[in-house]
Formats: sequence, C-alpha cells, structure tokens
Amino acid sequence: MSGYVRALAQQARDASVVLAALDGDARRCLIETMAAQLDSSSASILSANAEDLGRGEAAGLSAAMLDRLRLDPSRLSAIAAALREVAAQADPLGEVTRRETRPNGLVIERQRVPLGLIAMIYEARPNVTADAAALCLKAGNAVLLRGGSEARASNAAIAACLHAALREQGLPAAAVSLIEDPAREHVLELLQLSDLVDLAIPRGGEGLIRFVAEHARVPVIKHYKGVCHLYVDRAADLDLALGLLIDGKASRPGVCNALETLLVHRDIAADFVPRALAALAGREVQVRGCERTRALATGVLADAVQAADEADYAAEYLDLIIAAKVVDGLDEALAHIARFGSDHTEVIATEDAATAEAFVRGTRSSAVMVNASSRFNDGGQLGLGAEIGISTTRLHAYGPMGVESLTIERFVVRGVGQVRHAESHS
Amino acid sequence: MSGYVRALAQQARDASVVLAALDGDARRCLIETMAAQLDSSSASILSANAEDLGRGEAAGLSAAMLDRLRLDPSRLSAIAAALREVAAQADPLGEVTRRETRPNGLVIERQRVPLGLIAMIYEARPNVTADAAALCLKAGNAVLLRGGSEARASNAAIAACLHAALREQGLPAAAVSLIEDPAREHVLELLQLSDLVDLAIPRGGEGLIRFVAEHARVPVIKHYKGVCHLYVDRAADLDLALGLLIDGKASRPGVCNALETLLVHRDIAADFVPRALAALAGREVQVRGCERTRALATGVLADAVQAADEADYAAEYLDLIIAAKVVDGLDEALAHIARFGSDHTEVIATEDAATAEAFVRGTRSSAVMVNASSRFNDGGQLGLGAEIGISTTRLHAYGPMGVESLTIERFVVRGVGQVRHAESHS
Repeated sequence: MSGYVRALAQQARDASVVLAALDGDARRCLIETMAAQLDSSSASILSANAEDLGRGEAAGLSAAMLDRLRLDPSRLSAIAAALREVAAQADPLGEVTRRETRPNGLVIERQRVPLGLIAMIYEARPNVTADAAALCLKAGNAVLLRGGSEARASNAAIAACLHAALREQGLPAAAVSLIEDPAREHVLELLQLSDLVDLAIPRGGEGLIRFVAEHARVPVIKHYKGVCHLYVDRAADLDLALGLLIDGKASRPGVCNALETLLVHRDIAADFVPRALAALAGREVQVRGCERTRALATGVLADAVQAADEADYAAEYLDLIIAAKVVDGLDEALAHIARFGSDHTEVIATEDAATAEAFVRGTRSSAVMVNASSRFNDGGQLGLGAEIGISTTRLHAYGPMGVESLTIERFVVRGVGQVRHAESHS
Repeated sequence: MSGYVRALAQQARDASVVLAALDGDARRCLIETMAAQLDSSSASILSANAEDLGRGEAAGLSAAMLDRLRLDPSRLSAIAAALREVAAQADPLGEVTRRETRPNGLVIERQRVPLGLIAMIYEARPNVTADAAALCLKAGNAVLLRGGSEARASNAAIAACLHAALREQGLPAAAVSLIEDPAREHVLELLQLSDLVDLAIPRGGEGLIRFVAEHARVPVIKHYKGVCHLYVDRAADLDLALGLLIDGKASRPGVCNALETLLVHRDIAADFVPRALAALAGREVQVRGCERTRALATGVLADAVQAADEADYAAEYLDLIIAAKVVDGLDEALAHIARFGSDHTEVIATEDAATAEAFVRGTRSSAVMVNASSRFNDGGQLGLGAEIGISTTRLHAYGPMGVESLTIERFVVRGVGQVRHAESHS
C-alpha cells in the first residue's frame, strides 16, 4: 500500500463534510456550473479523448470498446445536458420522510442525509466521470473516481472541468477526487479503506465486479449482469408479446436490461414460436432453443435454431443471440428463472391478472414487468431521473439507483427533557 | 471448508422461498405458535440453560456474562411476550410504498419484499435466538443463527421450540437454521457464502464484529460500539441537562446507547460542572475530565476528577465512568464528536432552536437527540417495535433496525405492451 489512495480518500472525506453542509440551491448551482465548464472546455476534452482513442487503436481495442470510449461534440453536449437534468432534480436531502409523536411526547423524525464518501470504480465510458460525480454531489456526497486506463486522458480532462467548477463555487476540489494512476494496486488499497469509504460501486465487466466483490472491506453495491427473461403465458396477447420480444432483444442488445431468454407456454407454442423465430430472424437474431422450440422451426426456418445447452440459459449474450425454451407452465418458468436468472429484470406477457400476480410473487428480481419491455428497467424510464447504475444487490437499493439511493435516513428526536428512567432525575 | 455450513445455508435458502410466499396472517400465526411452544417448553429450556450456566461457572465466566446467559421463568415469559409483540406488528411485506404513472402509461410500483436469507452471528444472550428468528420470519426471511458456545444448550433448546412451531404450521424447519457447532471455522465458511446469504448481522463484542467485518464476502451491517455524547449548550436548561446526563450515564451503563462523554459550553461550565459532578458522584460515576473540568471540582469534590487523556475520549466504558470536557462552543463540540464519535447517538441540551439545528446538521450519527436522553435510541422507544440491533453502518439502515429494515423495495411495472423503441414493433 503506497498511501497515495488513502491520502486522496482522506481529502475527499474531509470535503464530504463541506458538501453535506451545503443547501440544495448551492448543490444545484454547483452542478450547473460543472455543465457550463464542460461546454466551454469541449476543445480540450475532445483533444484528450483523441489521445485516448489513438492509444486504444494502437493497443488493438475492439470497435465496440473504441465506440464506448469515443466522445464527439454531440456526446459532450449530451453529458452537459445530463448534468443539468441532475441539477434540476428535487433536493433529496433534509427531507423529513416520516414524523411521529410518541406517547411520552418525543417527536421522532426520519431525515435523509448523504452517505458520505462514495467510490466509483468503472471502465471505458468517460461520461461516467461526469454523471457519477453529479449524482453523488446532488446527494451531498463526495466521490472518489477510478476510471479505466483506456480513458485516462478523457477522464482527467473532464475532472479538470469539475474541479474548476468546485473552485469557482469556493468549494474543495477534493469533493471530486480522481485516482489518475490506474494501477490495480490502487483499487486494492481503495477497497480496504473501511474507515473512509462509505460505499463502493463497481460498474463494468464481470471481471471488474468480481475483483471488487472479492477484495472489498468497504460496503459494495453490485451492478451485475442481466440475464433477463420474457415469459409468454398461455393467456398472452401474442402480438403484444412479439413487440416485447423484439424490443427486449433487438433494440439494444449490448445493455444489461436486454432480454437473454424467451420462455413460451406449451399451449401457445405452436402458434407463437414460429412467429417469434421469423421476427427474430428478420432482426438477425440467432436463436439457441430447446428440443420443443427446434421442432417448431420448420419451412424456411428449419435450420434457424441451434440446440441450447445449460450454458446458453446462463449466458448474458449482450449480442443478437437469444435462448428459447418451451415450458409446461408458470411453475416451470419460475423454476427456470430461479435457477438461471440474475435478479435483474423479468417480464411476463399475459392477459390473465391472477397469472401476472403469481409471476410477480414468484420472482425475486429487482424489477418485474407485466406486459412491458425489459428495456424500461432504467432510472430515467422508471421516473428516478439519471441513475448511477442498476443494483442487483438485495440491500440498500435494488434496481435502478437514482439520487435518493445515494442517501440514508437517520433519526432526529426532539424532546423537552424526557428521560427513560424517571428515577434518574437528580 | 467442511461444507457443513454450506449445506445448512442451502436448506435455509430453499426455505426462504417458502417463507416469502406466505401471506401476512400465516407469518403472524407462525410466530404466535413459536411463543406458545416456548411457553410450553420452559422446563426443558431452563434445564438446558442450567447446563450452560454450570459449564460457564466452571469455565470462570464473569458475573456479568453469566447474568446475560441466565434464563429464569420470568425472562422466558418476556421472550415469549416479545415474540407475540413481533407477531402483532403490521405486515411489512407486499406494501406498495410508492406508485406513479409515467407519461407512456406505465404504472411503476415499489413493493417491499424480503431480503432472503439473513445470518445472525451473536454472543451470550440466548433471547437473541428467539428474537432474531421472529423478526426475520415476520419479514418473510429465513435465518441462519450462530450463537456463542457458552449458550449452546440454551440456544439448541430454544431452536427446538421454533422448529416444532414451523413443523406444526407445515413449514420447513430449515427456515430457522442453527449452526450448533460453534467452531469459528464455521463462521468463516458462513461469511464466504455470497451466493446464499443476503445479509450478515454480527452482534456482540468489538472482537466479534471486527472478525466478521474482516472476513465477510457477504454484505454486513455492523452494530458497533456507541461512544455517545451529551453537549450542554450555553443556552441549556441546566436542570433538564442534568436529567439527561444521569439517565444517559447511570440508568444502564452497560448498553450501547449510554453516554460516554459530557461536553459543556464554557459559559455555563462554572454553574453546571459542579452540579454535574455532585450528581454523578451521587450515582457513583467516576469522571475523567479535562483541565477546565478539574479546576471546577472544588470542595468535597476536589479529588473527584481524574485527568482525561485521548483514550478516555475514545472509550466506550460501558461502566459507571464518564469523560468530561469543557469546550469553547458548538464548533469545538462538533469537532470533538467528529473525531471521537462512533456514529451512534449524540445529544444536545439547549433552549436555542438555531443552535439545536446547527447541532443536528453538524453531526452524522444515526440518531441525534434534542433535549432527550440518548437512552431513547432503541427500536421500541422510537416506535419500530422490537429491533434486531442498532446499525452504525451508513447503508441500508442507520440506527435501530426493526422488521422493515429486513425488507427491500423492488420495482413492479405494469403496462399494456409498451416498448422502448417504437420501431421494434414487428
């Protein structure tokens, strides 16, 4: 341990006290100033990004990786716009969420306060640097950012804008602290700082998340893979189900709320499966199916379905591939989801209200959709505003995490001298 | 790793699915049956407890430890009564905590669901076996219990009653699983089971809690020490402040919400400190004071105050000892609390509303009391009913944890076929 990260974290922790004491207007104004700084520094950010892209191309990064890394004037404007949206959200702090007067006259309030210092450990996309900082600051937290080495120059240029805004508002720049040296030993050091870091949020590939979970001594909320299921019930509207299938799989296959497995009730399989296969083929989606699914692939689709194995049902493809299985009914669908699901998002298409409720009760995922696309499991779509990620950890927050998830409720008790044991009075 | 604990945890995990599917009446009835079983098995529980006490005496356990271990008919009745109180609480599950309709017609609900499988790791008091099980079951969770070796026979006898109640209700006994072999390697194995255990709650001495925090790969909520402060402001009602001091320190010094440090504004120190010292002496409380405190100990109290050092300000005495310091004002009091506090409970005595609010804003503890005793930081006193502990972890729950803290909100989305990208429609 070099002590480099502890020193950074201590400064950020000290800054968190200043942040927590700001009123809502000051936090809103700070984030708006950050957006303005990003707008006025676009040239230097794009130049830094070009440096990262050049290094990435030389290092042979994939086209998908380079695309995630790439900034352009329109993406930069979108980042600034996202910051303004966060700034405009209602202030999550100070709100008294409950108030109760006890028989002894004590007034018990629950009050939202910041978590303190949040560590974000992420990869690739440089927009996370700005987004995560804004969300943490909006909730009165300081943030310690460790981005990926491939976005090093871009992240530093964006952080410079955020620091300029903090200084402009007379606030400590350490409220947004960037670990500029991407050495993994620094992540290890960060994950040990249980006296300074209140929460670590890893975002990225499975390897990064496992590394963080394995080594953390600080609390971690995981944003893990999405093996999302669509169950088409016997009582489904099949046109509606087809719409959910194509939106869920083909509209953006590389995201965690995309569908990975289709489960079809056997009673409607002969009707639905051929239509589904044709629609999937029309969107160039490959299918890995069970025997019953394959038996329904006839005519021009005769060779369209590869045989699925267990690994296919467990896979998060993040690609134009879907697993498909015909099931005997709701119980088999729920058992399949319990075995292969990742607690992310499950969807049922059914017109039968009792079956819908049994599906809701029978799944433990963070979001369950009745006749709606899995792609709606997103903070913006669910009304939270911007999100810092989608938690599949069943603690503190479960599902999309917005600003409110970066706060905690505490107790404020107001009395007139009440004591617990009357005989204590002198 | 023997696999013994993994097998237990897997059975408990399977049972958690059955628990989560029960309705509120069934969970209430189950806990009432447990209370009845405890009542009707008092002879065998007391006999098992006598065995533990005999072994404990032979092993030279302290009188305080033996007292915590001891059960008698009245303590057993109190345990059964506590279970009936938990049973009678409102059902925390299924409640829709928020509902919103989005512009696209999606209805977004937040719904409370159980956490899943909770591991309790605790020491001494056998009542925790029954209390923790009831609280976890009330919230639809299964529980894996690992009590201390000194209470081994008592815990097994209580668990036998809980199992009898589960079987009587046609439910899997594994919903309450007891690790009967207290070997520490089993705790280690338990703490690695991140695929099975949703939350671990350690309750006990600092050594136990540090051990759990150090080795856990599962989420942990700590119930850590309470270094609680009373700040007597310049604008305090001194009689009221004296009542808070004596209740906070002397009514039950061995608990985590007892006061450990008194901070006094210099402007009223000459008036308050001598009265405080006299009252504390009257309750046989030793004082470790700063120079200014000691200078105010005159007359019969001339030798009553030992000099305090840094260790005294950091100490959780859990005894009839208190540290005392005269401060220049609110800022010094807040700085002292920030340095030595444990995020548990802080109290201010003041009649000045602005000072009270500044104190509330300036502390980050789980509970802050204005003109009320620190001893009210307790689930029952704050209106939560029974508590599973007091969290000083700033995540998920902060302060006393009742039944609701053993649940999590998830998203249920109801639509009529909405998709995110209209062009996805086939």
